[in-house]
Amino acid sequence: MIDFSEDREAMMDVLRVRTQRRTQLVDLTDQVSRAVAKAGIVSGVCYVYVPHTTAGVMINEHFDPDVAGDLEGVFDRLVPHAGPYRHAEGNSDSHAKAAMTGTSQVIFVEEGKLALGQWQGVFFCEFDGPRERKIWVKVMAG
Amino acid sequence: MIDFSEDREAMMDVLRVRTQRRTQLVDLTDQVSRAVAKAGIVSGVCYVYVPHTTAGVMINEHFDPDVAGDLEGVFDRLVPHAGPYRHAEGNSDSHAKAAMTGTSQVIFVEEGKLALGQWQGVFFCEFDGPRERKIWVKVMAG
Amino acid sequence: MIDFSEDREAMMDVLRVRTQRRTQLVDLTDQVSRAVAKAGIVSGVCYVYVPHTTAGVMINEHFDPDVAGDLEGVFDRLVPHAGPYRHAEGNSDSHAKAAMTGTSQVIFVEEGKLALGQWQGVFFCEFDGPRERKIWVKVMAG
Repeated sequence: MIDFSEDREAMMDVLRVRTQRRTQLVDLTDQVSRAVAKAGIVSGVCYVYVPHTTAGVMINEHFDPDVAGDLEGVFDRLVPHAGPYRHAEGNSDSHAKAAMTGTSQVIFVEEGKLALGQWQGVFFCEFDGPRERKIWVKVMAG
Repeated sequence: MIDFSEDREAMMDVLRVRTQRRTQLVDLTDQVSRAVAKAGIVSGVCYVYVPHTTAGVMINEHFDPDVAGDLEGVFDRLVPHAGPYRHAEGNSDSHAKAAMTGTSQVIFVEEGKLALGQWQGVFFCEFDGPRERKIWVKVMAG
Repeated sequence: MIDFSEDREAMMDVLRVRTQRRTQLVDLTDQVSRAVAKAGIVSGVCYVYVPHTTAGVMINEHFDPDVAGDLEGVFDRLVPHAGPYRHAEGNSDSHAKAAMTGTSQVIFVEEGKLALGQWQGVFFCEFDGPRERKIWVKVMAG
């Protein structure tokens, strides 16, 4: 691991969330949008990266909050908490759910703004909460 | 959502597909390859982004079309249409399948061309069709 | 497919792995880190791309090797080898697992180094081994 000095001339932004439940989708759209606005780039891409191994990041509907709740249920049913696992911490299902959602997302930046589809939002995906978590955001011109 | 004026000096290309079935993989390889050729970039990356919440994008075998059919079946069996869902539109399984395939893919551009592996193609993944859909493509030099 | 002349002035690195089992996660972290060091870029992103259709790439815990073993088991249980498949090669489950992990990952480069989280490693995900495989790595400044 690199010990980033977060107060140096940052080449990325660090967002923070505190989760409340073991499995919980947290809407990050506003925080990511602010990071993009701050970057001052007219056209390019925004990367959202989760530096954890039992959490991920997802783009999906954030208009109806029931969708996020339903997705939490789908992942919990797909990967049982009590499988035949060897990892001693008892959270192998969390690692698997993180692998399925992925640790990063890329979103276009157009006209200086985060170019999501009409119903899309960016969700931090907690699979082993409650915890304090970080999300890294980088914006590149292009 | 940003209302992109699609006839302005575009920083991305917009592809369109019309799907015929509820779950359907559509081969986009030729359309994405043309967008890369048009961009005129020798080396870099091509991002393919789906601005919908019940559809995704995948890279997989496009030589034998039976693979795409088998993948449609796998996703439909993994996430049941009739789960215990709260989202009133009745398509929570579509949202979950989109989350599992992801909304974007990155492919290298080398020697001015889309650098896919020998058997790879790019598929739009419809999970709540039939519909008219858009796919955004951006090519960055690097 | 593009026939890359790998000894030309390369715009990407080609890593190689030889897998031993049908489903096997192989830790690529050191090889990817070396490719980033070689690139000599202070800040940017590193893309890891798998040009195969029955293998993927994942970021997850590499501190306790039991996690990788547990993840192999989860994917093998989620997608049965003997489903109702049409693809004649008998490896449709391998294609599906590759689709679920994805063919690429993006990792930030900060201070000239691969910026993984504390417990994260990069894994090549073999789902139809044993085979000889390639992984493409590209580093872009930004």
